[in-house]
Formats: sequence, C-alpha cells, structure tokens
Amino acid sequence: MPALSSLCLKPAALSVQSSSQVSPPLSAMLTPLLLLGVLLGLGAARYSPDWPSLDGRPLPRWYDEAKVGVFIHWGVFSVPGFGSEWFWWHWQGQQPPDQKCVDYMTKTYPPGFSYPEFAPQFHAQFFNPGDWADIFQASGAKYVVLTAKHHEGFTNWESPNSWNWNSVNTGPHRDLVGDLGEAVRNRSLHYGLYNSLYEWFHPLYLMDKKNGFKTQEFVMHKLLPELYNMVVRYRPEVIWSDGDWEAPDTYWNSTQFLAWLYNDSPVKDTVVTNDRWGAGCACKHGGYYNCEDKYTPGQLPKHKWEKCTSVDTFSWGYRRNMKISELMDLPTIIKDLVQTVALGGNYLLNVGPTPDGMIPTVFEERLRGVGAWLKINGEAIYASKPWRVQAENTTLPIWYTSKGGTVYAILTAKPPKPTVQLLQPKTSAATKVTLLGLPKPLSWTPIQPNAGLIVLLPELPCDLGQAWTLRLDGVQ
Amino acid sequence: MPALSSLCLKPAALSVQSSSQVSPPLSAMLTPLLLLGVLLGLGAARYSPDWPSLDGRPLPRWYDEAKVGVFIHWGVFSVPGFGSEWFWWHWQGQQPPDQKCVDYMTKTYPPGFSYPEFAPQFHAQFFNPGDWADIFQASGAKYVVLTAKHHEGFTNWESPNSWNWNSVNTGPHRDLVGDLGEAVRNRSLHYGLYNSLYEWFHPLYLMDKKNGFKTQEFVMHKLLPELYNMVVRYRPEVIWSDGDWEAPDTYWNSTQFLAWLYNDSPVKDTVVTNDRWGAGCACKHGGYYNCEDKYTPGQLPKHKWEKCTSVDTFSWGYRRNMKISELMDLPTIIKDLVQTVALGGNYLLNVGPTPDGMIPTVFEERLRGVGAWLKINGEAIYASKPWRVQAENTTLPIWYTSKGGTVYAILTAKPPKPTVQLLQPKTSAATKVTLLGLPKPLSWTPIQPNAGLIVLLPELPCDLGQAWTLRLDGVQ
Amino acid sequence: MPALSSLCLKPAALSVQSSSQVSPPLSAMLTPLLLLGVLLGLGAARYSPDWPSLDGRPLPRWYDEAKVGVFIHWGVFSVPGFGSEWFWWHWQGQQPPDQKCVDYMTKTYPPGFSYPEFAPQFHAQFFNPGDWADIFQASGAKYVVLTAKHHEGFTNWESPNSWNWNSVNTGPHRDLVGDLGEAVRNRSLHYGLYNSLYEWFHPLYLMDKKNGFKTQEFVMHKLLPELYNMVVRYRPEVIWSDGDWEAPDTYWNSTQFLAWLYNDSPVKDTVVTNDRWGAGCACKHGGYYNCEDKYTPGQLPKHKWEKCTSVDTFSWGYRRNMKISELMDLPTIIKDLVQTVALGGNYLLNVGPTPDGMIPTVFEERLRGVGAWLKINGEAIYASKPWRVQAENTTLPIWYTSKGGTVYAILTAKPPKPTVQLLQPKTSAATKVTLLGLPKPLSWTPIQPNAGLIVLLPELPCDLGQAWTLRLDGVQ
Amino acid sequence: MPALSSLCLKPAALSVQSSSQVSPPLSAMLTPLLLLGVLLGLGAARYSPDWPSLDGRPLPRWYDEAKVGVFIHWGVFSVPGFGSEWFWWHWQGQQPPDQKCVDYMTKTYPPGFSYPEFAPQFHAQFFNPGDWADIFQASGAKYVVLTAKHHEGFTNWESPNSWNWNSVNTGPHRDLVGDLGEAVRNRSLHYGLYNSLYEWFHPLYLMDKKNGFKTQEFVMHKLLPELYNMVVRYRPEVIWSDGDWEAPDTYWNSTQFLAWLYNDSPVKDTVVTNDRWGAGCACKHGGYYNCEDKYTPGQLPKHKWEKCTSVDTFSWGYRRNMKISELMDLPTIIKDLVQTVALGGNYLLNVGPTPDGMIPTVFEERLRGVGAWLKINGEAIYASKPWRVQAENTTLPIWYTSKGGTVYAILTAKPPKPTVQLLQPKTSAATKVTLLGLPKPLSWTPIQPNAGLIVLLPELPCDLGQAWTLRLDGVQ
Repeated sequence: MPALSSLCLKPAALSVQSSSQVSPPLSAMLTPLLLLGVLLGLGAARYSPDWPSLDGRPLPRWYDEAKVGVFIHWGVFSVPGFGSEWFWWHWQGQQPPDQKCVDYMTKTYPPGFSYPEFAPQFHAQFFNPGDWADIFQASGAKYVVLTAKHHEGFTNWESPNSWNWNSVNTGPHRDLVGDLGEAVRNRSLHYGLYNSLYEWFHPLYLMDKKNGFKTQEFVMHKLLPELYNMVVRYRPEVIWSDGDWEAPDTYWNSTQFLAWLYNDSPVKDTVVTNDRWGAGCACKHGGYYNCEDKYTPGQLPKHKWEKCTSVDTFSWGYRRNMKISELMDLPTIIKDLVQTVALGGNYLLNVGPTPDGMIPTVFEERLRGVGAWLKINGEAIYASKPWRVQAENTTLPIWYTSKGGTVYAILTAKPPKPTVQLLQPKTSAATKVTLLGLPKPLSWTPIQPNAGLIVLLPELPCDLGQAWTLRLDGVQ
Repeated sequence: MPALSSLCLKPAALSVQSSSQVSPPLSAMLTPLLLLGVLLGLGAARYSPDWPSLDGRPLPRWYDEAKVGVFIHWGVFSVPGFGSEWFWWHWQGQQPPDQKCVDYMTKTYPPGFSYPEFAPQFHAQFFNPGDWADIFQASGAKYVVLTAKHHEGFTNWESPNSWNWNSVNTGPHRDLVGDLGEAVRNRSLHYGLYNSLYEWFHPLYLMDKKNGFKTQEFVMHKLLPELYNMVVRYRPEVIWSDGDWEAPDTYWNSTQFLAWLYNDSPVKDTVVTNDRWGAGCACKHGGYYNCEDKYTPGQLPKHKWEKCTSVDTFSWGYRRNMKISELMDLPTIIKDLVQTVALGGNYLLNVGPTPDGMIPTVFEERLRGVGAWLKINGEAIYASKPWRVQAENTTLPIWYTSKGGTVYAILTAKPPKPTVQLLQPKTSAATKVTLLGLPKPLSWTPIQPNAGLIVLLPELPCDLGQAWTLRLDGVQ
Repeated sequence: MPALSSLCLKPAALSVQSSSQVSPPLSAMLTPLLLLGVLLGLGAARYSPDWPSLDGRPLPRWYDEAKVGVFIHWGVFSVPGFGSEWFWWHWQGQQPPDQKCVDYMTKTYPPGFSYPEFAPQFHAQFFNPGDWADIFQASGAKYVVLTAKHHEGFTNWESPNSWNWNSVNTGPHRDLVGDLGEAVRNRSLHYGLYNSLYEWFHPLYLMDKKNGFKTQEFVMHKLLPELYNMVVRYRPEVIWSDGDWEAPDTYWNSTQFLAWLYNDSPVKDTVVTNDRWGAGCACKHGGYYNCEDKYTPGQLPKHKWEKCTSVDTFSWGYRRNMKISELMDLPTIIKDLVQTVALGGNYLLNVGPTPDGMIPTVFEERLRGVGAWLKINGEAIYASKPWRVQAENTTLPIWYTSKGGTVYAILTAKPPKPTVQLLQPKTSAATKVTLLGLPKPLSWTPIQPNAGLIVLLPELPCDLGQAWTLRLDGVQ
Repeated sequence: MPALSSLCLKPAALSVQSSSQVSPPLSAMLTPLLLLGVLLGLGAARYSPDWPSLDGRPLPRWYDEAKVGVFIHWGVFSVPGFGSEWFWWHWQGQQPPDQKCVDYMTKTYPPGFSYPEFAPQFHAQFFNPGDWADIFQASGAKYVVLTAKHHEGFTNWESPNSWNWNSVNTGPHRDLVGDLGEAVRNRSLHYGLYNSLYEWFHPLYLMDKKNGFKTQEFVMHKLLPELYNMVVRYRPEVIWSDGDWEAPDTYWNSTQFLAWLYNDSPVKDTVVTNDRWGAGCACKHGGYYNCEDKYTPGQLPKHKWEKCTSVDTFSWGYRRNMKISELMDLPTIIKDLVQTVALGGNYLLNVGPTPDGMIPTVFEERLRGVGAWLKINGEAIYASKPWRVQAENTTLPIWYTSKGGTVYAILTAKPPKPTVQLLQPKTSAATKVTLLGLPKPLSWTPIQPNAGLIVLLPELPCDLGQAWTLRLDGVQ
C-alpha cells in the first residue's frame, strides 16, 4: 500500500489536492539540471519517492565514523539574544505569549518594534570563518551543521525566495552559509545545513495551515524552490531538517525531495539526512534518527541516531544574559558524548554565536576542552562501534565502545579507589589493559575465570573532562 | 490576428513558454471568488484577454468628470529622501551609479548599509489619514492615487507575497493603503492605487530578465498573486500601472489580468486603468493614456488621457533637501491644470509625504491653493468638455473648455490692459459674459460679426493662482 | 543709590554671597585679553557695572537702521521636533508634564529614552551655510540671530564648558555658530547670537536655584566662562539674551558682563544687546527692549525695541508635524512688520531649521516673500524713523514711517475703492505722491487745506504681501 | 623641606599660580560639611597636606586582611568593546592613531561618528547588582572596586559636574555606582571606587595641559568638586586613583584632597588609597602601592602593595572579540594570586562587564573558580602575613605565607612525585603537616636536623586551580 506508507502518519481526514501531487515540485530553472542527473544516473539504483524505498538507502559511511559534530544556531534571533532562538514565537506567536519576552520588549524597545527590525543589527562584524573553523577543528568534531534557515525564515544566504529577509540583503551583508562552508571544508570537516520546513509567520504558510494543509502555496513557491537551490548551491553533506511537525510529509513533498536528493542531486552519494520530514516521521523515517531534541535512548537502538544538544541548556541560540550555572560544564559534556557513542549515536554539540560574529569564549573553552579530551581518548570514539554491552555501573559508571577486536571501557567518573572492577569483559591470557594517554600496560587480575577483571589504576591524570579510557585488548 | 494584437510590441524573437500561458495566473485562493463572479456576471458583456476587446471598454464616466486628482508617492524611498524615489536604482542599480547618491550614502551611513535597512526608519508616526484626506478634499481633487507598491517592491499593505517587506511587518506597522482608502472614501473621493509591475531588485524578476523574459517566475509567484489580492482587498477605482517597459505585456500577463479586472473583479464597473501594461503599450492600449510622465499633447488627443506631474519638479517622492526654486509655484500649477483640462486630460498632481507621515506644509499650501482657485473656477473644469478650439494666444494665453452650451475662456496670465480679445467665440445677441467669482455681467463688443469679441474687464481680484475665467453663454 | 539700581528687582530678601561678588567672574585665561583691552581703552569713556551707566550707552546705529532680522532656533530640540523648542521642559520639567509630550515619547521611543540621546540624531547633513545666508539675504533682513545655546544647554559650537553637549562633540560634528557666521558676514549681514542664561536641567543651576540663588556655582563655572568665550570667539553684534527670569541680574552677574562687553570686548563698539538680563529687567534695562515674546506696544515707545515673532505660530523650533494653518501667511507677516517699524521697532522673524540642516521650504517661501515685498517697499522701512503719527484707520489700516522730509503711508489691506483718504499728512503745493514700484506720480486732492488728502490710486499690482506704500514728498 | 616633599617630583621649573593654591579647592557647597567635620574631629590626630604627614597614616587594617578583590572596568568603552578600554585614545588621541581602531570605526560606523554617540548604546538592560555581588562573593573576594569614572570622563553616577556625560542622564539611566555599592555591601564586602584624575579629552584639562599645568581650571571646576561629591555620596572604602602621570600632584591638589579624606571625610577611618596621585608618586607616596599595572615585585616590599591584573590579558574593559587564548586560565590566576599574597600584596582581579550589564560567563567561571580554590585554601591567604621566606623552587614552585605560628606552603604546580621537599621550614618534634582540604595529617621526615623536611603526599585531588596548600604547624 504505497499510498499509505508514503505518509508518516495515518492520513485520517487529510486529503491534499491531487493537482499539487501531480505537478512537479521543482521550479523551472532546475529542470535542465535534473535531466542531466537523470542521464548521468542511468544504470544506478534509483529511489522512488516513498518511504520504503527511501528508508532503504544505506547511510553514507563517513557519518557513522565521524561521531562528533558541532551545531551552530545563528540568525536574527541572535540579536535579541533573549530567552532562546524561539524568541519570536514566544513573544508574538504562542497564545498566551511568554510574559518575560513581552516584558523585555516593552522595557527595551519602542512600542511597535517588530522582529524584522532586529535584522539590521545582525552585524557579524567580527565573523571570521577561519577562526570558527579552527575552533571546530580543535574540538575534534568531524562535521559542522549551521542553521541555513531557522523557523524565523531568515536565510543565512541570499535566497531568491527570501528577498530582503536574508543575510546578504540586510544585516551581515554576507553569504554566511557559503563563507563558513568554505572554511570548514578547507579543514577537511564535513559541512551540513539545518533547514526549517515551516516558518512560524510566513503568510503563505499560515494560509496553507488555515486551509488544513490542503493547499501548498508555501511549499511550492517558497520552501521547495529555496531548498533545491540551497542544495545545488552549497552541496551540504547533512541536511538537518526541522520544523516538520505541524503537517504530514505529503504536505512538505518530503519523499519527492528526498528521492531527488538521493538520485539526482550533486550530493547524492555523500549526503545524510535526519528524520524530521513530516508529522510522525521522527524516529521512523528518513536517514539517521534524531527523534526528539536531546533524546537519548535507554538501550542500543537498531537505527543510526544522533543526539543533538546545546552547551547552553536553556537555548540553542546565543543568549545575552546566560549564566555559568545554565551551561553544561566539560565533564557533563564528555559524559554525554561517551554515553551517546556507546549507544551507537553521533553527538552534535551546539553553540550559539553572537550577532557580532564571535563564538562566545565560554563556548570556545568547552569546544577546545572536548578536543583536548578527544586528543587522548578519540581512539575510543571515532569510527568505533557499540560493543556487545553498552554500560555497567558497579562502583562507577563505565561505558563501552569497540573497534575491531579492541574494547574500550570509559570511566566517566573518578574511581574512588585505585582499582576498578569491570564485570563484562571476558579475559584471556592474551588480555592487555592500558590507559589511553599512558604508555605502560596496567596490572589486572580476573575476577572469575572468563568473567570480569580488576584493574590496578595508576594515579589518574587530572583530566578536565573527568573521564578516562581503559583499552582492553584480547578480551571478549 | 489576435495573437499579434495581444502584444503591444511586435513580438520579434520573443517566445514565452506556452506552459505559463496555459496555466491560470490566479492563485488557488481566488478560485471561489472567480466562480462567483462568473455566475453573477452571466449575461453581461465580457471582455476577452486581448487588446482589441479590452481597448473597447468604455471608460467609467466618473473619471472624465473628475478632472483633478492627487498623486502620492510614499514608501521606503521617503526615508533617505534624497535625489528622488528612484534613489535605490540610482545608488545601486544603474551602471555607473549616480555619484551623488553614492557619496551621500558614503558620507551619511556606515559602510555596507543596505536599502532594506531604511525600512525600520519609515515611522509614519504622525500619519493621520483624516488630515490627509481633508487636504485632498480641500484641493478640489476628486480622486486620490497612492503608491501601493513602487519599483522598490515595498508594499504599503500587508501583502502575503512581500513578507517582511511591507508597511505592516516593518516600519509604520500599519496598513497604509487601507487606512488612507477609508479616509479618502469617507470624503466621497475616488481611491486609486499605483502598482509597479517590475521591481528593480527582486531576485525572481532579475532571473526572468536574465532569461529574456521567457520564464515568468516573478509574474506567477509574486506580481499576479499580489495584484489580484490587492484589488480584491482594497477595490481601487484606479489602477495606475507602471514599471512595464522592460518586458512585453505577454510577460506580465496584462491582458489576462485586465480581462479579469473588467469582467469579474469587485471593481469591474467602476475601475479605470492607464496604459502602462507592457513595452510599447503606453499611448496605445489600456484605459486612459498617460503616455510619458508629465506628457502634454500638442493638440486635442482622440483618447482620454491624464497628465501626472509633481509639485517638486525633481522628484515624486519626498526630498529632505528640496528648495523652493525646485517646486512649482501655484500659478504654474494652475496654468498646467487649465491647459491639461482644455486638452481633454485629467490632471494628477503629486506630493511626497515625509517618512514621519506628514504632507510637507509647502505641498499642503499648493494643494489648498489649487482648491481655492477651483472653488471659484471649478465650474469651468469639473465635468467640462474640450471646446471646438482649445486655445488662443493673441495678447495673452487663453484656454477654452465647455459644458453644455456654455464656453469658458480661462486667462492664465494677467491681461496687460483692461480689455481682452477673444478671437474664437462667435457671438450673438444673446451672448452674455461674466467673470467667475463676480456676480455682474461684463460689457463686451464683437470684433467682427460672429467672429470674436472684446471684453471689458473689471479690476481683477488678486488671485493667487493667477488665472481668471470668463464664462461665455450664448456663443458658438 | 547704585546698590539698589543695580538690581532689576527690589532685592527683598536676596543676599548673594559677597565673596562671589568680589572675585572676578572671568576665568583666568581671559585675563591677558582684558588687560590688553584696558590698555587700549585708555582714554575712552567707560561704563560701570550698574544699570544707570549701562543704560546710558547709545545703541550702535546700524541696529535701528537694519529694521529686519531673521531669527533661527536650531538645536537638539529640532530632533524630536514636537510641540516646540520647549519640548524637554514640557516633557520632563514642568509639573505636571504636558501629556502630549509624554504620550509622544511613550509611543515613539523605548522606555527610559532620555533627551540627551536625541543629540546623535542631530545630523545636519544638508547644512549649507551659504544656502541659508542666501535665503536670509534674499529676505531683505539685515541681521541674523542664531541660537548659540537654548535653555537645553546644548551649544552649537565647541564650548569647553559644555563638553559632549555641543554640536562639535556630537550630532552635527560641526561648528554651526562659526560656519553660519562666516556665511552671513560674507553677505554683509550682521550676525547675532542668542544665549540662554538659565539651563532647565543643568545640575549646577538647579543647585543654585535650590539655594535661592545665593550661590553662583552655575554662573561662575558654566555660564560666564562660556559666554565670555563665545563673545571673544565669534564676535557677535547682537547678544540676544534670554532665560533670565528666574533669578535677579545680580545672580547672573549681568552688569559686570555688560560692562566688560561695552568697555573691553572685541565688539564693544558695535554690539547691541536686548533687555533680558534678570528678573524684572525686561522692558526696563539693557540695550533695546524685547519686553515679552511677540510683544507689540500700543503706541510709540520711548525706547528702541524689537518684536521677535515666528512664522510657525506654535513654535520657534522646527516641528515635524506643523500644518499650514498654524503658520503665518505672507500678508500677516508684512502687516506685522509694517506695524512694528511704524512703531519704531525692529522686526526679528523666526524660522526653525530641520535636524537635517534645511530651512523648511515653506519658511524659505515666506522669507523670500518678505524680500520681494521689501525690494519694492524697503525704502519705507530701512533706516526709516517713526513719523509724528504712527497710524490711521479711516477706511483701511495705514501705517506711517518717514525718512528725512519724506513720509511713507503703508496700506496693509487692499483699498476697497480706487481712492484712499489720508487724514494726517498736511499737504502743500509741493506735495507729490507716488506708489512705490510705479514710476508715475499719482493724482491727489486735499481734503481740507493742510489737513489730509485723497489719492487716486492706480490699479494696484497683485502684491503677494498685500501691502502697498504711498510715498509722500512735501507733506508735514 | 615641606615645599619640596609635598611634590612627588622635583618641582623643576613648575610654578603653579599661587592664587589657586590659596583659594580652597572645595566648592562652596561642601563648606558646612567641612566645618562640621572639623568640629567633630577636635582632638583627633590630623594630617597635614604634605606627603610626610600623609604617608605616615597607618593603613586601615581591613585592607591587608582582605587580600583578594575584584576590579570592574565598565563604561562607555564597553560599547565599542574593541581593542581595550583605551579605545577612544587609541582611535582619536594618540598620534599616529591605532590603525586597527581607525579601521574598525571606518568599517562599522558612519563617517563622523563620535565617541559620545556610543553612550546611548550603553543599555545595561540586564544589570542586576545582586547577581554581580553574588558572583563576587562566590569568588572569595573581600572587596570590589568599580570604575566610577575612567579616562573617558563618563561617570557611572549622576555627577553634577559631568552633565549629560554620566550613566543617569544617558545610556543606562541608572546610578550604577550606587546600585552596585548597595548590593556589594549587603554581602559584607568592602566597596571601592576607581577614579581617573585626568580625562583624555576634557577641554578644561587640555587647556591646563597646554598651559603647562600652571592653570587649574580642570582641577578646580571639574575634578575636585566631583571627587569630593563622590566620596561624600558613596563613602568608598578604597579610592583607586589613576590617570595622574601627566601632571605633578601639586596640579591635582592631591595632598589637600587626601588631608581632607583622612581628616574630615565620612570615610576617614576606613578608607584606603593607592599611590597614583601625581607624576612620580607611584611606588612612593599615598596609601598602598600599585606601582605599575600588573606590577609584581621581585622580593618582599617594605610597603603594602596591590597587584591589579585582568582576566583578559589584552584589556580591562569588555572586548566583543576576545578569544580564549587571550584570557588567563584558572591555574595562571591562582599562581598569580598566591605569589602576590606571599609577597605581601593584595590581588585585585579585573573583569569587564558587557554594555548589556552582564559579567561574561567566562569571567564568571574564572571568579567562581578562584572562589572554589579559596574555599579550601583561603586559610593560607586571608589575613595571612608573609613568612620569613617567600618562596623556594627546588623541584617545583612553592610559596609561603603565615598566620600566627602556622606556616603555609603553597604548591603552584602538581608535584612530579608523591613526595615534596621543603628546604626552608625548620621542623621540631611538634611539627605537624596537613594538606588543606584533607583531614588527616601527612607523614614527613626532616632533611637535616632543623633544616627542611620531606612530606609524603596523598593522591592530590584534581583541583582546577592546580595549587595545593600544605599547612605546617610547629615549624620555624
């Protein structure tokens, strides 16, 4: 039943006009390109625009090996820098509005001041993509995902479908997406783009919504032309889709887009996507799964997933009034990263730059801290696979990863004693234990034959990340 | 040959894609309305979307009788208020740019400041539509035409196709088109809207232009949805079209739009349009003719026309640095008005309000001056018809109008002597001559039997408009 | 009784500390200059710092001959341009505040916005002193008075005593006083400066005021150093003092300042001053008398006086929202000017420039209108003297001036008949009557021997000022 | 030779006008207060206005015991936040100017933009003095010093001598000095104020400077009235004087001010001052010595001193574009603090808040880090005295402090081995060694009889400050 399976949700009373289903979503300008794609693709396996087919695509390998990415939320929301990147919605969208946002605007701006009027203050005068990319590289991340367009609809590139509401026409007067992409790729990092399907206040979207999503004015004249254009222009290797939940994937034309992306786009071989392609899709369809924001599974999932989370626990975008107690400290981040990787996930850690174009120093410090930890412990992270057991917690929390025959036991707290018990690994005569960062093998002793071992720890170096990795060779 | 005649210009090598011709230009939301219109219109004569049919529509009567209108250029261009309302183009469009504009920006604004960033300074804090409409009424004008959208693309109403680039989302935070319309209509004036077809910098327009106007992305996804919406929403009685000259009317889909406007729109019975509907259309197709800006014909045209002109001879929009010598004085305006009406035209006099929302006092003075003159002389203007002779100029310039059997001779300069010769009117025994504004008939004597007369003038009142009207009854 | 007469008011309970009386008001830097002045002045008559002496100084002759001046109110108050140049006081000074001002600020600016924050918006980007001076010259004015400092305390020059609150440190970044002075003098006009003694919100002034004006912190450390500096630097020929009324002249040290001004300043021979030098001084002490703003005496005063008035009847400073009905029209201005001169006064007509640096066009039009009238009728104005009779009003208002043996009768309304009666002049055989602007003498006939005449008028030219001058030679 | 000794520098050719010496520096308003002070002070020892007397005043005890303070640089310079708090000088003062500052302004602001125009952007909208004071308290600091006025002259309180150039009249619209003071004192911290004697661009200062400091216009009419007022109003317990170096103390009237401060001011018993009171005074006269910024002596000074330093090694004021590598990390700060205290100094650690009113999170982190370290190790710091030996560095850097009979040896690096040698302490049978933070005594053994000991260390806790304190009882 392809008609049904092409919908993430049971379609219930929904009935999108057939005309918009039939008419191609692609704007005329893309036609030649598509034809070329079709020609060159002759002979390759092609995906059809339905979930069974699309879900069958193997995830490009680079992604699972990368493990760690940096997420960047940057946009007009960085200018008020209040509450979160959802400021506009909290202030003027939701009913009732967030009184803190209303009060802040009332106190700080003239009556009638509107959100678009923040854009000219998005100066980005210090934005040096090379400096950013240096920090990202130093963090040990292997990919970087920037908000090309958040729910506010402002595009960080000169989208022809978002005239005067983009970073080239106003504010930074600069192609932020392009400039960062170049710097990131020059450092051999993968480059991805976040794109919100819905836009809180776009009049065409609101009209479609009012029409119960039976019209697709927004999708046909705004969303899709822009999205195709963005892919062709910037060739992102991640499309981090978001803002899908108000409408079914059939409204967004998601399967058609993904079929094009996988079959004919310039990034068809390398691109990965997530799972936010329509109400009900999350955790079910698409590329890797994000499920909810900051979601962490209780046990090893069957499908590749990614945990996205933010150093600022209150916001993804920059907040002018953040306090240190509201930020994750380094040990918390490392613990989170380790758990995520042990459970088969990727870890996408978010920072919110200032409207001036700087990564706040405290975020820089966290990123460099992650990098310092990975410099020693990255062997247990990059290109690792979940082990047969993910964790144990006898005397302290221990997470396992593996690579080939090697098992890594990562201690995410300082052991209270100079020995540590590992119950899960089965030792043999050939078993060898080392602490990453120290050259000498450690002494150990089996607990029972083939069941667990006790390792005699050296004095642990004062690691700022507060996590240490034991490498176990010759165990099972 | 309808195919040919539907083009204002010989089509030469132009060939617009047939698909866009076939698909209806109307956005889906308008369909029910159209159907209703079709149903109600059953039996009425309908216009087909070609020039022979459209050009055959009689001009609604109110327009020719109105004679005098006020034109208002108001938009983001009023904020810089420098050079003219073409500031953006002169600064960043044309090659080479206007050095004065470049220098002004360099001297006054930070580097990189872009035109859209003027919008938040379009405050309109003093905009009182009632005050404006009072002035327009006092001017004796019978219709008012406001720029709903100029070439900059900024709409003075909340167009869903111009998100964040309209007067409700930014700047005034107000429906300027709607608010003025209500005030104008409350004073029984007709309300018209100026609409620019092209937009200098709209990315979709630039793309179509690059494609030799063989694509219609801009027309289909921006121009037409917006224009239909504007008509339905505000019911303008004049559509003052402009910005047509770069592309043929077939690109703009002008004939389809006009057929809808005349057949099915809510203003089908009263609306008038001008002649700017595509390259080559001016002075040839449409409703009344504007031909060029400030155009005045040498002799009586066969087709109803309108002269649009501006008190500020350098600009239609507000200029912060205008000087009195650059403005038309009242006698110049009155002369111009009289000549226009004598030649069968309407006179549309423009003023440019400030970004604060005020009609500059010097413009108010001019408008009230016109009104004071019309209070006495309006009888010779409103609902008048050109006479068999339009003018003579023996000793001073005299312009003729007529109404029923009455002829009006308007002296647009002070006679050097206490008598004035009129060579054209043929007198009879019943001939009676009066000066508008004075009760007593004047003495006169024929020059030759049936050919001309000499009128003995009273001391002329010191009219600020410097024009006096002799009413001649019983002449031919 | 010099002690008493040196006070404009009876001193009542006032008792300024003797120390401040004794210590010289001049800042140390001026000492060498003063000494030089003293040395050069040896032998000249000197004024002592008391009213009997100062009031005895003859008014420099140029002033009475000039008759017509232009007054300019320009300052930070031009930025809000709301209400009047008293905006700050009405908004935040008086109790209760003016609700319109409070509402305007609440509606238009963010909470907490303070008056000094208007200063950066005082751009003056179009200020061309030559253009201004051309207009002033064309107006027929012989002197120009600019607000060097109004009650707000902002100086339009780089006063060292008003750091960061002057036109060079902020806003225009320009020496407005100096630049205009140069242009004005290049056109042979006299240049005067308005200076407010008090400053509504200066903390030192408020402190002195709280102390019942028994301390002189403000006078000694702000007012006087600045005022001396201004005189030495710009050599104004008029010091138009204002803001004196809250304190006695002894607080302001007015007599000491005037004694220096008349004895030792660089403008001692040419400077004129007005009468606002302390509570009770107006109409009583100083140079010429202004008495109240817009004051006109009922009959010929004994002391030289000046009427200051403003084209905008609501304000001296620019108002963004002025309307034509709130402005004086040209005939009103001319009538006012004629009456003033007939009564022995000078006429100082005010205009308020925009914060952009332009004279609003409607003001330019008025000024040029005055100039056009003076071009024909100036003979009856400049260097004229009041006649033995100032006015008569038998059939229409007539004002008299005289020069040598010539008498001028100025008709400030259009005569209803082609003759006009003048009852006051006594004719003789030699009497000759002409209309200024027409070459030919007019016929006249005596009413009684030696008592009045009837003049046969020609057709009067349509003067925009609506006033005509009869020149009478050989009358008494 | 009081005449000589009252000058920090040899007076050379300097000769300040005697008049200004004689006349009291105090503005009239302060006189009653002073008289009162004199009356109440009868009988107490009084200081005369010369250095021998002033230098003889004992330092109030609280200061030496406090050891740790927080320094805050906040002002208009926080708005550009570029280069350093010296931005104005580097941009427009020094010759040649700093090209980076010039370029930044050219690139980011309109031509002619002046420094005072930054003030309205000093919003301080998030300034919550309680939050700040909580952080300062958490840092372990015992006193807080805020810039009441930096070299730019902008006062963070409503100084009547700095009208419209203070934080109440413009920008924050708030008494920053008063509001922070209240919060700081509520947490039992001492409150001090930084005051710059000179102001780079004050016109009166520039005039005095041009006069070779032989006039004192600035001192008499600006500096001193303001400074007296500030002391009386806010009762600071530290006056952190700065900006003295261009002129001798006789120009600043420093000794007169200090005599008043010590004899008659409301803080005479508790106030401490530093040593910046005139060219040549630093390290020689006044209260405690700062000598140069960030100065650290090579050996134990004879006079109480303070090291002021800044977390941001490039600036004292906030920099929008700071990077983590430009900031001191916590171990560096702790090392610096320990060394300073061991050498008898106080440690004043600076942070620069944002113009929004926040302590940047990275600074908050540093301050809380210092506090966490002091929580364990504060016993060795607060109220400590230098020991007979300040440091030794056999195997790692060790600094000594003492309190009563207890000696503290602070290890500012992690010992490479589980033992540490202390050569300087002389042990006895009663000697006891503990590590602060751990309850149990440590084993030790003497190196030689009475000369040094070897301590057996436990596993050191992973202190973020990277410094550990050994408490030695019963040593000499």
